[in-house]
Amino acid sequence: MIMRMSSLFVRTLREDPADAEVPSHRLLVRAGYIRRAAPGIYTWLPLGLKVLRKIEQIIREEMDAIGAQELSFPALLPREPYEATNRWTEYGDGIFRLKDRKGNDYLLGPTHEEMFTLVVKDLYSSYKDLPLSIYQIQTKYRDEARPRAGLLRGREFVMKDSYSFDVDDAGLDASYQAHRNAYIRIFDKLGFEYVIVKAEAGAMGGSKSEEFLAKAEVGEDTYVRCTRCDYAANVEAVDTTPAAPTAYDDAPAAHAEETPDTPTIDTLVDHLNEKFPRDDRPWHAADTLKNVVFSLKHPDGTTEALAIGLPGDRDVDAKRLESKLGEGVVFEPFGDADFASRPSLAKGYIGPGALGEKKPAEVRYLLDPRVGEGSAWVTGADVAGSHVLDLVAGRDFSGDGVIDVAEVRDGDPCPACGDTDGGILESARGIEMGHIFQLGRKYADALDLKVLDENGKLVTVTMGSYGIGPSRAVAAIAEGTLDEIGLCWPREVAPADVHLVAAGKDEEVFAAADRIATELSAQGIDVLYDDRTGKVSPGVKFKDAELIGVPTIVVVGKSLGTDGTVEVKDRATGEREQVAADSVVDHVVGLVRA
Amino acid sequence: MIMRMSSLFVRTLREDPADAEVPSHRLLVRAGYIRRAAPGIYTWLPLGLKVLRKIEQIIREEMDAIGAQELSFPALLPREPYEATNRWTEYGDGIFRLKDRKGNDYLLGPTHEEMFTLVVKDLYSSYKDLPLSIYQIQTKYRDEARPRAGLLRGREFVMKDSYSFDVDDAGLDASYQAHRNAYIRIFDKLGFEYVIVKAEAGAMGGSKSEEFLAKAEVGEDTYVRCTRCDYAANVEAVDTTPAAPTAYDDAPAAHAEETPDTPTIDTLVDHLNEKFPRDDRPWHAADTLKNVVFSLKHPDGTTEALAIGLPGDRDVDAKRLESKLGEGVVFEPFGDADFASRPSLAKGYIGPGALGEKKPAEVRYLLDPRVGEGSAWVTGADVAGSHVLDLVAGRDFSGDGVIDVAEVRDGDPCPACGDTDGGILESARGIEMGHIFQLGRKYADALDLKVLDENGKLVTVTMGSYGIGPSRAVAAIAEGTLDEIGLCWPREVAPADVHLVAAGKDEEVFAAADRIATELSAQGIDVLYDDRTGKVSPGVKFKDAELIGVPTIVVVGKSLGTDGTVEVKDRATGEREQVAADSVVDHVVGLVRA
Repeated sequence: MIMRMSSLFVRTLREDPADAEVPSHRLLVRAGYIRRAAPGIYTWLPLGLKVLRKIEQIIREEMDAIGAQELSFPALLPREPYEATNRWTEYGDGIFRLKDRKGNDYLLGPTHEEMFTLVVKDLYSSYKDLPLSIYQIQTKYRDEARPRAGLLRGREFVMKDSYSFDVDDAGLDASYQAHRNAYIRIFDKLGFEYVIVKAEAGAMGGSKSEEFLAKAEVGEDTYVRCTRCDYAANVEAVDTTPAAPTAYDDAPAAHAEETPDTPTIDTLVDHLNEKFPRDDRPWHAADTLKNVVFSLKHPDGTTEALAIGLPGDRDVDAKRLESKLGEGVVFEPFGDADFASRPSLAKGYIGPGALGEKKPAEVRYLLDPRVGEGSAWVTGADVAGSHVLDLVAGRDFSGDGVIDVAEVRDGDPCPACGDTDGGILESARGIEMGHIFQLGRKYADALDLKVLDENGKLVTVTMGSYGIGPSRAVAAIAEGTLDEIGLCWPREVAPADVHLVAAGKDEEVFAAADRIATELSAQGIDVLYDDRTGKVSPGVKFKDAELIGVPTIVVVGKSLGTDGTVEVKDRATGEREQVAADSVVDHVVGLVRA
Repeated sequence: MIMRMSSLFVRTLREDPADAEVPSHRLLVRAGYIRRAAPGIYTWLPLGLKVLRKIEQIIREEMDAIGAQELSFPALLPREPYEATNRWTEYGDGIFRLKDRKGNDYLLGPTHEEMFTLVVKDLYSSYKDLPLSIYQIQTKYRDEARPRAGLLRGREFVMKDSYSFDVDDAGLDASYQAHRNAYIRIFDKLGFEYVIVKAEAGAMGGSKSEEFLAKAEVGEDTYVRCTRCDYAANVEAVDTTPAAPTAYDDAPAAHAEETPDTPTIDTLVDHLNEKFPRDDRPWHAADTLKNVVFSLKHPDGTTEALAIGLPGDRDVDAKRLESKLGEGVVFEPFGDADFASRPSLAKGYIGPGALGEKKPAEVRYLLDPRVGEGSAWVTGADVAGSHVLDLVAGRDFSGDGVIDVAEVRDGDPCPACGDTDGGILESARGIEMGHIFQLGRKYADALDLKVLDENGKLVTVTMGSYGIGPSRAVAAIAEGTLDEIGLCWPREVAPADVHLVAAGKDEEVFAAADRIATELSAQGIDVLYDDRTGKVSPGVKFKDAELIGVPTIVVVGKSLGTDGTVEVKDRATGEREQVAADSVVDHVVGLVRA
C-alpha cells in the first residue's frame, strides 16, 4: 500500500498544541495522528487510526490464540443490570448517564461485567459449556474528573475486555494463567518496556490481580519494585510484613505524662526529647502511635467512624485506604462537627483508651501491621495535653483488627525478600496498560449466573476479567519510544513500514522514488511516500519524516545523480547508510521482515 | 480457521423470540447471531460479528479504492458544532442528549456532518488540498420513536459515512459519481437485490440525491418504479408532471350552488351526481378541489397556517409533505381551535376565496401541480353547505405557489416516460441501505469552511455525503436471502465458507471430519465444524446447519463407511452430491473460490 503525502489527510504542526501536557500528546497532535474533539475525547486521523488498528489486531490475534471468542456489546446500556450489581450508584459521577425519549435510564458503558455475565447466563446452562473466554474490542466511556494527557486518560476510549467463565477455582486459575501468558506476548510485541505488578483485588471482590504497567515518568500509577528481587507491586497492593511479636515481660508499665501543646507528632517528639530524653537514642516519630479518625459513608448510605493507628512517621495513603475499603465507600478525615459529636475523642491526643468498638468513643479501631505484639509506643492519653508512654501492644491495648494502609516509602523492606535478603523497595511511575484479575463469583452471584455441575447441582460460575486499552496503548507506546525530534514507532505498530522521501526537484528523483514505492508496495510493504512537489523543501520533508516516526526512512536525493545511491536511515538510532538505488527495495524488504 | 460448534459461543433456539417482527430478526436471534440488550440495541455474538466485519471490510476496500481515507470520530460529541448548524434543536427527540459532570451538553452522534466539516477546516486551507474524500465506519445513535425489526431500525447502529470536499460543482459531481460507482460495486458484492432510486434532497439543503434500496416486503421505504422505463424514485422524490395549460375561453362562468350536508368529498360527489348530473360522464372525486389546512411549527418556534389545494381523489402524503417542508418543521391538520381562530375558514367548505396570503383567512395557499391553468373545479364556497362549480384555475383563482405532496398511486403516469411512452408507476417496498447526496455548501457555510482558490480568493467548499449502514445490511441481506428453514448467506458475507457436520457416533466419522476440517483450514477456508458428540443427534446438527445458513454444507456420515463418500449440499438450492471423502477438500476449495 502506498500513502502519498501529497494527498494524505494529515497536516504536521510546528507548534505544540496549547492543551498538551505530556510529550506523547504533543507529538501525536503535531504529527497529525489525533485531534481533540472535546476534553478527553479525540478524533483519530488516518495515521493514528492505522496505529490503533494495528494494536487492536495484535491483541485480537493473541486472544484468538488462547481460544477466546470475539463478540461486541453495545456502548449504550440499560440501567437495570448495573442496578442489580449496585454499580449504577457506586459509579457516582464517574459515568455518563442519560435518558431516552421515554424517560428510561441508560448509561454509556464504562466496563461490561454485567453484560458479559448476562449473555453467558442467556446462552449457557451446563458445566459442559465451560470453560469459556469471550472478549470484545469496543468503545468505552468514563466521565473522568480530570481527563488528561491526551489518550492516556480519555473520556471516550477503546478497550479490549475479556472475561473467563469457569465452574471452579482451578479452572479460573488456568484461564487467568492463559490470559497472563497472552498478555505477556502482546506486550512483548507492542515493543515497549513494561512491568507486571501485583495489584489489589480485594475491592473488586476477587482474589488474584496483576497490572501491566508501561514504565513512564508521565504515568499516573506509582508502583514499587524491589532493588534486589523481582518483586513489583502497585502501591495499593504492597503487603507490609507484620512486625514479629517481641517479648514484653520486662517492659516498664505504661505511664501518662503531661505533654502540653503537643497536638502534632513534631511537637510531641520535640517535647519527649526535651522532657523525657532516652539514654540510647533520641525519640523519633516512629516511636509514636498516631491515631487518625475517618468518617466513612458506605454505598448503602450508612455511615461509620474508623480510627487507624499507625506509626507517627507515616501518613495514611488515601489510595491504599480507598482500595482496602472497597468501591463506593466515601471517606474523609474527622472534622470539627465529627469531633463535637464524640466528646471522648480528644483531638490531637487520641489514644487507644478511647478507641475500639467497645471503648467510650465507639469507633472501630484498626492497627497498622507494624504495631506488633509487645511493641511499646507513645500515644495520646485521650486528654488534651497528655500522652501515655511505654504503652505496650497486646498488653495495654489492642485494635479490632489490622489495616495495611500506611504510605509505602522508598527504603521500606521488600515484602518478598526483605526478611531474608534485605531487599528494599523503590518507587517508580508507570501507565496502567493492562489489568488481569480474578473476579470470582461477585458478578455471577449478583446476576445469578449458575450452571449445572456433573451431579446435576446448580453451582455459581467463577469469573476472571482481563483488560487492555488499545487507545491508551497508542499514547503509551509513543511516550515510551519518542525522542526530542519526534515519534519513533516500533515496527509492529508503525503506521507504515517505510517513509520514502523524494528530496529534490529533478524528474529523475521522482521517477526513481515512484519506482521504489511501487516495487515496495508490490512486495506487501506499506509505504508512506512523500511525493510532494512545489514549495515543499527537502528540509520540511525530513522534519516531517522525523516527526511522524516511521521506523525506516529512505531518501531519494542528490546522491542518486552522483553515485546512484539512496539513503536508508533508521529513525530510532539515526544510523544512515547509502544503498544502491537498484537494490534498495530488497534491502528494505530485508529490514522490514527481519 | 476452524470454529468448533462444541466450543463456539452460540446457542440456536427452536422458538421464535417474542419481540421479533420480521423473518430476518427472528432467524438472526434463533441462529445465535445477535441478542437484544435493550429496545433497538443489540449485542453481536461471534457469528453475527463475523458477518458484520465482512460487510465492513467489503465497504472499506471499495472506499479505499476510490481514494477515500479512513478516520474515526468520537460518538460522544459536544453540543457546540450542532448548535452552529441548528441541528441540536432540529433533531428534537430524535437524538440522545446528556450532560457531563460539569453540566456541559453532549450528544451521541446521529450523523457527523459537523465533525467532518470542522476537521477539514482544521487541516486544510487551499484548493490544492482538494478534492478530498474521508470516511469512517463507526457506531451511531438515534433515539427512534419506534425501533423495530431488529437491526433494521436500531437505536445504536454501525454506519459507514463518507464526505467529499470540492472547490466547485464539477468537482462535487465527479466525487458523487465516484461514490455512486463504488456503492454499485459494494451492493453487487453484498449479493442482494437492490434498486437505486431518486431521493428528495431539498430538505438537506443539497441538490442531487439517490438511495440504494434493498428490495424487501418488510422494508419501511415505499418507492415507485416505472413499468416501462428504468425510472425509480423514493415516494418523497416523485415529481408530478405539472398539468399542461388548457384553454378556458369558452368555459362557463363560476357559479355557487347550495350543497347542503356535503362536508366530505364522497357526500359532495354524490350530491353533484344527483343534483347537477353531467351529460358526458358522472362527477368524480378528481373533479373536486380539496383544500386541506395545516398548522406548521418551524424550528425557530414561529407558527404558520398552510393550505394545500389538490384533487379530491388524493390525500396529502405526510412523508412527502415532511420532506418538502424540511427538517424540523412540525405540522398537523387544523383542529377545532385553529378553525375557531380563523372564522373565515368554513370547515368542510373551504375554497380559494378565503385562501392565499392576501385573502381573508390570511393562509398561505399552495396548489398541487395537477391544478393546471385553465382547469375547472368544484370546490368550497367558504360558506357551510355551499360549493362553487366551474371555478377555473388562472381565471377565478390562483395559489401562492405549487407544492407536490399529494399521494403517489399505482397507475400514475411515469414522470420520465409517461408523456411519451405511457409508462405508469407501481409501488414497491424496500430497505434503505445506502444514501448518497450532494450536500452542497450548507454545512460549509454554517461552519465557515473556506479555502483559497487559484486566485487567492476565499471560496466556500462544496460537500457530498455518502452513507451505508453495515449493521442494517446484515439484516437486509438476511431478509433478502433467507428461506423457510433458515438463514442463507451469500458467500461473500457468510460467517464461514463451509459448515462441516460430523454426523454419527463412529470414530471414523470424526477422524475423517477432523482431517477434512484441518485440510480445508490449511487452504485458507473458514470452517464451521459441528464436532459435537454425546447427545447431539445428526438431525439436530442438520437443522442447526440449515438455520445458521453457511452456503456449503458438508456431511460426513453413514456413506463414509459404505462407499467412502461424503455429502456436499448447497444451502441455497438444496442440491446435494456425494463426493469421495478423499477429494472433498479440493472439491470444496473449488466451490469457495469459484
